[in-house]
Amino acid sequence: MNNQAIGDLMLNWAEVAKGQVTAGLDQDLGVKEKSSARDLVTVLDGQLERFYRSQIRKYFPHDRILGEEGQGDQAKSLDGAVWIIDPIDGTLNFVKQRAHYVTMLARYVDGVGQVGVIYALDTGQSLLALAGQGAYLNGQALDLTGPSDLAEASLDQVLMSTEALPLDGDLALYQLSKQSLGLRIFGCAGLDAVHLALGRTGLYLNHLYPWDNAVALILAEVCGFKVTDFQGQPLNLLDRQYVLMAYPKIHDQVLNYLKDRQ
Amino acid sequence: MNNQAIGDLMLNWAEVAKGQVTAGLDQDLGVKEKSSARDLVTVLDGQLERFYRSQIRKYFPHDRILGEEGQGDQAKSLDGAVWIIDPIDGTLNFVKQRAHYVTMLARYVDGVGQVGVIYALDTGQSLLALAGQGAYLNGQALDLTGPSDLAEASLDQVLMSTEALPLDGDLALYQLSKQSLGLRIFGCAGLDAVHLALGRTGLYLNHLYPWDNAVALILAEVCGFKVTDFQGQPLNLLDRQYVLMAYPKIHDQVLNYLKDRQ
Repeated sequence: MNNQAIGDLMLNWAEVAKGQVTAGLDQDLGVKEKSSARDLVTVLDGQLERFYRSQIRKYFPHDRILGEEGQGDQAKSLDGAVWIIDPIDGTLNFVKQRAHYVTMLARYVDGVGQVGVIYALDTGQSLLALAGQGAYLNGQALDLTGPSDLAEASLDQVLMSTEALPLDGDLALYQLSKQSLGLRIFGCAGLDAVHLALGRTGLYLNHLYPWDNAVALILAEVCGFKVTDFQGQPLNLLDRQYVLMAYPKIHDQVLNYLKDRQ
Repeated sequence: MNNQAIGDLMLNWAEVAKGQVTAGLDQDLGVKEKSSARDLVTVLDGQLERFYRSQIRKYFPHDRILGEEGQGDQAKSLDGAVWIIDPIDGTLNFVKQRAHYVTMLARYVDGVGQVGVIYALDTGQSLLALAGQGAYLNGQALDLTGPSDLAEASLDQVLMSTEALPLDGDLALYQLSKQSLGLRIFGCAGLDAVHLALGRTGLYLNHLYPWDNAVALILAEVCGFKVTDFQGQPLNLLDRQYVLMAYPKIHDQVLNYLKDRQ
């Protein structure tokens, strides 16, 4: 199956997932805390992960699965074909807002991202990334003029986004936001990646898990922004890391800024 | 004309405004800085304000108009019937994101809000507030169960929203956000009011102009949240003020918190 066909399959699954979420909204969400009151999981997270897993097993019986809710395989390496999935990204938004949350699916082969989808479970808007080909917003090839202008943009010309977490431990990041045009906090890593890919923001900083980064890395290659850790090193996609996503000139700027503070 | 009919008129005008914005997106937006690079105005702000003004003059020749772009009447009082309008709220979002911006229209009589509309110029979603009657999301009467649960909620149970501005001068507000479930920054006072009215957030703090607050005050009365300045006093709707919007228990909590820091 080629990447385009795999992308179509992902979009179909995400649409089914949206239907399941919509149907589940009126029932008890079975909200449970994971690490804290800000880190939630619902019965729908598990339900969607099982659905995705069953579909992946059916179409790609030899692929491995790495997922947020831990029902997949333990991924100790990215050798071979690996799916990295986040059934509901922005679970706190889902629970509290019933808005601003997405589902994310990515397929990697030998550590290289091939296809990724970010699908808004509230609005049904989708962003599909095909490595080496392009990005598609609701099925339309993305106009990359905006992002390509951003290649030369500096921090003071862009909006940036982050979350509370990295600010808590490091007020330097809050000071950094004052050098940008403005700070936005969406509370959903998938949406942050979408806004970056669409050139709505120029910088995103957060403390993220592999399933938060998997689609963003493919989008980055297609749209021209960079994704590294806070030392400028490539992500390993197996651990939680501090992540810096930005268009090239801003990426340099922020890396220097962070270096001076370490 | 009764409030319901005035609300319908507002919604019609907002829909026309959305059409004008969509048509204008491909042209030069003529972006100009007002007080700073974060405080922008485009040709479309002025165009929409002129459109609203012409409609108001036609249907309500004796009403006065207070608007962000200053083409209306100088309002030194709120006596009689006064329109408070913001053609594009979230202009920085509009310019940089082409998303997350709204148009707002409110009609006050002798200082009391009667009808208000917040209309998303990107998605076409609308929230209509009719004083003493209710709120309507995309034409559907709002289910106020969520917000009424929020009457007893405390800060640690809700998401809060703010903007960079009040944080700059007062890190106490940033500390406050750590006591909440999470901080969101949308960059559009109209959307912040919508999220509060829908119970998606429980608290909103910002430094706001009358046209940012006019619809929110009507929504507050209908949905059960409180809107005051940082001392707990009613807003005057003629000046820029620090504004605290929150459900009752949270409002008390935050007022006490602010008092301890003044």
